[in-house]
Amino acid sequence: MFEPANFATENDNPREACGVLGISAPGEDVARMAFFGLFALQHRGQEAAGIAVSDGHTVRMHKETGLVSMVFTPESLAPLKGKFAIGHTRYSTTGSSSLRNAQPFLIETLLGPLAAAHNGNLVNIAELRQELLQRGTGLSSSTDSEVITMMLAGAVGATWPERIQNVMPRWQGAYSLVLLTRDGVYAVRDPWGFRPLSVGRLPAGGYVAASEWGALHTLGCVDIHEVEPGEIIAVGEKGLESIQGMAPAPKLALCTFEHIYFSRPDNVWDGQNIHLVRQRLGEELARESKVEADVVIPMPDSSIPAAIGYARVSGIPYNDGFIKNRYIGRTFIQPTDSLRKQGVALKFNVLPENVRDKRVVVIDDSIVRGNTSGPLVRMLKEAGAKEIHLCITCPPIRHACYMGVDMGLEADLIANRLGVEEMAARFGCDSLSFLSLEGMMKAIGRKSGYCNACFTGAYPFPVDLEHTKTGFEKAIS
Amino acid sequence: MFEPANFATENDNPREACGVLGISAPGEDVARMAFFGLFALQHRGQEAAGIAVSDGHTVRMHKETGLVSMVFTPESLAPLKGKFAIGHTRYSTTGSSSLRNAQPFLIETLLGPLAAAHNGNLVNIAELRQELLQRGTGLSSSTDSEVITMMLAGAVGATWPERIQNVMPRWQGAYSLVLLTRDGVYAVRDPWGFRPLSVGRLPAGGYVAASEWGALHTLGCVDIHEVEPGEIIAVGEKGLESIQGMAPAPKLALCTFEHIYFSRPDNVWDGQNIHLVRQRLGEELARESKVEADVVIPMPDSSIPAAIGYARVSGIPYNDGFIKNRYIGRTFIQPTDSLRKQGVALKFNVLPENVRDKRVVVIDDSIVRGNTSGPLVRMLKEAGAKEIHLCITCPPIRHACYMGVDMGLEADLIANRLGVEEMAARFGCDSLSFLSLEGMMKAIGRKSGYCNACFTGAYPFPVDLEHTKTGFEKAIS
Amino acid sequence: MFEPANFATENDNPREACGVLGISAPGEDVARMAFFGLFALQHRGQEAAGIAVSDGHTVRMHKETGLVSMVFTPESLAPLKGKFAIGHTRYSTTGSSSLRNAQPFLIETLLGPLAAAHNGNLVNIAELRQELLQRGTGLSSSTDSEVITMMLAGAVGATWPERIQNVMPRWQGAYSLVLLTRDGVYAVRDPWGFRPLSVGRLPAGGYVAASEWGALHTLGCVDIHEVEPGEIIAVGEKGLESIQGMAPAPKLALCTFEHIYFSRPDNVWDGQNIHLVRQRLGEELARESKVEADVVIPMPDSSIPAAIGYARVSGIPYNDGFIKNRYIGRTFIQPTDSLRKQGVALKFNVLPENVRDKRVVVIDDSIVRGNTSGPLVRMLKEAGAKEIHLCITCPPIRHACYMGVDMGLEADLIANRLGVEEMAARFGCDSLSFLSLEGMMKAIGRKSGYCNACFTGAYPFPVDLEHTKTGFEKAIS
Amino acid sequence: MFEPANFATENDNPREACGVLGISAPGEDVARMAFFGLFALQHRGQEAAGIAVSDGHTVRMHKETGLVSMVFTPESLAPLKGKFAIGHTRYSTTGSSSLRNAQPFLIETLLGPLAAAHNGNLVNIAELRQELLQRGTGLSSSTDSEVITMMLAGAVGATWPERIQNVMPRWQGAYSLVLLTRDGVYAVRDPWGFRPLSVGRLPAGGYVAASEWGALHTLGCVDIHEVEPGEIIAVGEKGLESIQGMAPAPKLALCTFEHIYFSRPDNVWDGQNIHLVRQRLGEELARESKVEADVVIPMPDSSIPAAIGYARVSGIPYNDGFIKNRYIGRTFIQPTDSLRKQGVALKFNVLPENVRDKRVVVIDDSIVRGNTSGPLVRMLKEAGAKEIHLCITCPPIRHACYMGVDMGLEADLIANRLGVEEMAARFGCDSLSFLSLEGMMKAIGRKSGYCNACFTGAYPFPVDLEHTKTGFEKAIS
Repeated sequence: MFEPANFATENDNPREACGVLGISAPGEDVARMAFFGLFALQHRGQEAAGIAVSDGHTVRMHKETGLVSMVFTPESLAPLKGKFAIGHTRYSTTGSSSLRNAQPFLIETLLGPLAAAHNGNLVNIAELRQELLQRGTGLSSSTDSEVITMMLAGAVGATWPERIQNVMPRWQGAYSLVLLTRDGVYAVRDPWGFRPLSVGRLPAGGYVAASEWGALHTLGCVDIHEVEPGEIIAVGEKGLESIQGMAPAPKLALCTFEHIYFSRPDNVWDGQNIHLVRQRLGEELARESKVEADVVIPMPDSSIPAAIGYARVSGIPYNDGFIKNRYIGRTFIQPTDSLRKQGVALKFNVLPENVRDKRVVVIDDSIVRGNTSGPLVRMLKEAGAKEIHLCITCPPIRHACYMGVDMGLEADLIANRLGVEEMAARFGCDSLSFLSLEGMMKAIGRKSGYCNACFTGAYPFPVDLEHTKTGFEKAIS
Repeated sequence: MFEPANFATENDNPREACGVLGISAPGEDVARMAFFGLFALQHRGQEAAGIAVSDGHTVRMHKETGLVSMVFTPESLAPLKGKFAIGHTRYSTTGSSSLRNAQPFLIETLLGPLAAAHNGNLVNIAELRQELLQRGTGLSSSTDSEVITMMLAGAVGATWPERIQNVMPRWQGAYSLVLLTRDGVYAVRDPWGFRPLSVGRLPAGGYVAASEWGALHTLGCVDIHEVEPGEIIAVGEKGLESIQGMAPAPKLALCTFEHIYFSRPDNVWDGQNIHLVRQRLGEELARESKVEADVVIPMPDSSIPAAIGYARVSGIPYNDGFIKNRYIGRTFIQPTDSLRKQGVALKFNVLPENVRDKRVVVIDDSIVRGNTSGPLVRMLKEAGAKEIHLCITCPPIRHACYMGVDMGLEADLIANRLGVEEMAARFGCDSLSFLSLEGMMKAIGRKSGYCNACFTGAYPFPVDLEHTKTGFEKAIS
Repeated sequence: MFEPANFATENDNPREACGVLGISAPGEDVARMAFFGLFALQHRGQEAAGIAVSDGHTVRMHKETGLVSMVFTPESLAPLKGKFAIGHTRYSTTGSSSLRNAQPFLIETLLGPLAAAHNGNLVNIAELRQELLQRGTGLSSSTDSEVITMMLAGAVGATWPERIQNVMPRWQGAYSLVLLTRDGVYAVRDPWGFRPLSVGRLPAGGYVAASEWGALHTLGCVDIHEVEPGEIIAVGEKGLESIQGMAPAPKLALCTFEHIYFSRPDNVWDGQNIHLVRQRLGEELARESKVEADVVIPMPDSSIPAAIGYARVSGIPYNDGFIKNRYIGRTFIQPTDSLRKQGVALKFNVLPENVRDKRVVVIDDSIVRGNTSGPLVRMLKEAGAKEIHLCITCPPIRHACYMGVDMGLEADLIANRLGVEEMAARFGCDSLSFLSLEGMMKAIGRKSGYCNACFTGAYPFPVDLEHTKTGFEKAIS
Repeated sequence: MFEPANFATENDNPREACGVLGISAPGEDVARMAFFGLFALQHRGQEAAGIAVSDGHTVRMHKETGLVSMVFTPESLAPLKGKFAIGHTRYSTTGSSSLRNAQPFLIETLLGPLAAAHNGNLVNIAELRQELLQRGTGLSSSTDSEVITMMLAGAVGATWPERIQNVMPRWQGAYSLVLLTRDGVYAVRDPWGFRPLSVGRLPAGGYVAASEWGALHTLGCVDIHEVEPGEIIAVGEKGLESIQGMAPAPKLALCTFEHIYFSRPDNVWDGQNIHLVRQRLGEELARESKVEADVVIPMPDSSIPAAIGYARVSGIPYNDGFIKNRYIGRTFIQPTDSLRKQGVALKFNVLPENVRDKRVVVIDDSIVRGNTSGPLVRMLKEAGAKEIHLCITCPPIRHACYMGVDMGLEADLIANRLGVEEMAARFGCDSLSFLSLEGMMKAIGRKSGYCNACFTGAYPFPVDLEHTKTGFEKAIS
């Protein structure tokens, strides 16, 4: 239940791969702008960061493992002069291959330089790789971005937009993509609309595309709107052009988890402010769960709006119950046995005054592996909480995601193995409630258009599980 | 008003020097315990960290600039074997001397090894240094810890407790101090009680002293209580012993700012839970300010409890208004001119939906230099807020601190130069309220016993401003 | 004449790109062996190093900028488990692209993983790149190794040897190449034989290929012989196989500069021991130059054997005259103006006792840009030398090399701009002699079979100067 | 015999602690000069380097572990503005304490800042430390430099020269010392004259003191002479002043090993050029050893002049036999078992052509632990040498050094345990000769005035072995 190996950085959140950013701003220091924009996308990937810049002739790139603030120094930014830029923050795997898989991925092609940065996952990647290998193109990484650039390098079409249009139908899965060429930036969103991608205008001239509105606001953008499913937005010297890459899928499949957990609260997703959606998730949860309690506390930070909403509807007072240590970083130092025995989580401490002798509702966004809920319940008990009612702002996660979110394999998912009662018993809480699918969609304010496969197993299109990314054999590492 | 040079890491908080920690736990891996304890004190100093360990014979030490998670690796911890440990997190000055001023400070003495780590500031340090120099002891750093160890090395007394008792009367100012000797740890708090220091018992045997309760809880301590002003707590093989170092000062002088800002909300200071005090600070502020508004928003994270309290008393709904970028790190990369002109703060983004067309109360903990309030007000205005009422949970800070808090010189303090109305005009807000001294003390629940010199200029004892730390000439750097 | 900007690491040698190494030794720790082998090839490239290892299934790689001893740590070597390995040391260009151009280059292909490490230069690289781009294969670096792997990935042939045979005729230029596949290592030498490559047998089983014999001796190899021009040596589980890749060129074109400067003295090149050839170069020089002098001194370290030879034939006593600072490393710190005015070279100091009041013959291997000869002559003069006779063990270098040696552009070569007398006047020496082409070949013991294009301009095949590497436009950087 | 643990960096040389440097050059960039001067002292210590600079008011310092070229960057040099500087290169012990023991050591004193850098060893250091501890001065390192500065800080005397004079009689042992004060630099040499220290004049004004002449030449010094035993040289705004610190010892005790091994060949020691002395050592050895052989080869690099001298007298031709890998760096990577079994040394390769079927005289400077001679003999045998005659340019080393040279404990010295015949058998060579003490002194050209205690055990004064540095208990580490 409690996995001490990850003690110091313990969490139980799904992980997503990547934030992306594209800038067209001739006359500005686009690399510096990209740097500051990536700061606001840091929460979408802390493992590696990269920026590629075109000066209209040559594309130069710097990428490295580490936080944005560590990867970029005045020295590493200095050579990145140009008019157009793309950037990327990556939630990467570990190990020596991590730098090789950092993005953007940059190649020279017959049409000149091409760089790509990508958020999402192509489910037919094994097939696409095989096609590239068959036509004699070797692959040096395991990123979708390399496959995307190599397919575009060999695509039919005299211009990049034509090539993108010709290749898009081959990409099955989630992709919010930025492409950098000699002459501008393309922002491309898959026809299902899995992952977010928005574009804004710079008052002084130019355009920015980014995974989230926070990055666009940081750069001072106005007239912000979301890139449409299947749309290609081209920005360059001539301004902004919208091109239909593909018709939107008949059934859109936006990722619900952007609402639940991934996006920063200031993002807009599917036309809705995330912070408000999260408050409504808490409100719906209060309507459904009907727990009697003395205090509502959030798991900081993502569940704070939901807890505020829950408190509002339930009438139970809102208060803080956990303190989050904001300086927890990566460490390879393991706790001593006595620390392990106590099962104390370093990431959170309890505010005993706020829970002692109280019936406590704890709002959390999701349960994935279930490895932190037990210790947190125990901490509250030891601080004197009388009852603990764990309320989750989404349904149980029972299925793996193949669209770019790392929730682990199905066998890793606690709700795939245990029922709600069993989970409650495992965690030691007095009750455990999950928001219903209907309640969740009601809070989101939509009846359809979302991918809820992690809850339902109903993927938006058939997924050949044997050939998904984890399935294909690694020849290089 | 807005200082773009610090754009990326802009803040306007007072800075405090240091968290301290001491452990006696023979049979445990005390270095590893110290490492995890320092994690929970990271907010008290992010510039350097160090641990010294005694195995009953030799004291070994590792200290470096950087976060706790960066300073300590399995390799750097490995040699630190022992029974007793002290640790330190430092809010240091910049420059090449920073490592030299990292703590603990470790020396060999006639009584064996002695290491010290210290939170506070001795106001008579120039005089004490002069005495040491006069007796022929050279000084290699500008830390109080070195002076403290050197004074103890030369003190009268056959045992460490005797020496500490003999030397304490010479130390004028704030000191919450941990000392490591061959045979144990001493935790010492000055007779005025300026800075926090608490001690707890390890259920498996042993004791821990630390600046805050969060560190003690992280290590699983029970029976936690604050070290008394003037008290020396000795922990070692024989258990815990309380020794009166000095009689408590007739007028105690606890630092109010631990309540306002420094301590983590889960700390206990002067017997009171910080989180509850902060809620009451918001409540008092609501009683005093009587603003009419539509929403109360906190400046995250420190003002959240106060905003909750304010909302409760005022009846104005609480909501989030700012999103804090939690990944802001040190960077030497400056924003572009266009970013500067927009005056956008990277550290915070606004949630426009929650403030648009609203009369907004913003709760903030304090105003020191006043360099961030203007930009934040502007961000809210640009997001559509109708009125902005800035409410501060303490009185105007008009005087420098000489007891270990870096608020800058008096000339740096905006409230030293401008009246409240002028400040409001400078920031562009519709009203600006500060909690009164009386209201603040009411929220704290005490009538006296605190140092409020930064508000009132009434220092607990005469401070010879010419010879305070910033005054004495630096011979080495 | 004297370029102070490179003061600290001043030298005037041609630079060569790379040492290569391949190992087949199932049952051994091939990564560790490769590490120790690369140590002995460090003089062929100090900018980057890399090792790729195959375990019969997956190929893993680690490469980085820096010396071999810095690039590889126990941690970075640990994952490189396997039976077969290749390694590389690189004399790279500077800048952010240096890591991207580090070798080996590793890709996945239809036949499994393929890694390449390469010493030399393909003169038709622009054309080969264009062909790859035309068939839709993007290129992510400017290395020949990437082109080589991509061509092999798309080549006709069911097996690697077939593919290599099919592709070799397309490679125009110098290549001593090691290839790593799932099942073994291929060592390939171009049909002109430009660069060295030898192979030896491990007494305990297995084979090693390497640029120089020193690496083979370090690994304990026996039965060492040179790979023939045009030959492919395959080593794997089944032992060693020799395959004719191409017929040797009718006119071989071995690089004379391996004798003059590149190879370590313990290498064997064209069947001859380099140290002995260098002694003979000095002997021939003595026969030709006929200077009357009191002492012969070498420029350490490469000219020591030639100076010994010169002394032997001329009867003039050999002695040391310069002390070389062996710890000179890369530094970005520039000398002060006064140091500059003195024109003192940090890399060498004079032994005044050995030159004072003497007529001195200085033996040096070559003059490329001519930027160090002047200061060295001046140092000897200031130390009291009566006459200085500079004797060079090769003819004047008047033409650029396109076969993998970086001598700069023709305009950079001092002998391309100035005659011998003018150079002597520029350097301030009393005489300047170059070994004649005939004398040089006599010392080498061959009449033909060598590329002497840098002296004569007669390239072994027509070189399209416009499309050589420095000529093609850089799309990515 | 062969210790594989040190395989990669195997050597068998005595180690010395430190090169020192002092500069007075108001108006120049003294830090930069110190940097370039330390380059030329790098061979005296590769573990740490430091520079301290006085601007007439404040002393600033930077020191770190690593080579001079790594420790100093434009950034770390920039703050070191001033008129006077001292610098240090250190041959340090390993481990976490290495930075703490780096030099210079800098303190503030009643007379202002004082920094010291030191080459040598005080044999009564335990007693001196005890005195400092007794007067209440704690010690934070195990360096003699700290003790020296602390003693001067507490010494009687109104001026630094007076204090130095008052304290010098207390320092028993070897010290070539540079001291930096607010107003200048003092260079101090012990009355026995154990270690070298010379001073030169800068033509543009100012003075430099340094361990060796190479550093003085690198900085362009003229009028160079050695500091006399017992002399204090003061340099500052007023120029150079010579002060008698102490009368020279009646029996001087210059370290013979500066001639044998430590100094660079361009140094002058005791008025004699090292390179010439080493040639004479070889000549004497030839006169004594009378081996019949076909070739004389040196162990590079230190034995090259001796081998030249040996060849000259014996008439046996000189040639190179070993190639030294100049890029060997520190590595923690251990060789594989097969590499170990072969006993191949990475640091040296043989030139088989020069030794095959020959009777070979190998000239080496000294045998300390005897751990490399065996493998080297084996390498020559395997390369086909018919006979191997090992000739050493000094007598057997049978006693430890307490004057600053790390030769290990007596038990580590092979000549302390084995006779010459036994050593020869152990190494597998056909004969082993050591230069006699008389022959060595004859080559040096002196009859007395040298410390030969490592050969004879006759220390220049009684050494209390129990209280030498390795003897006193470490309280801090």
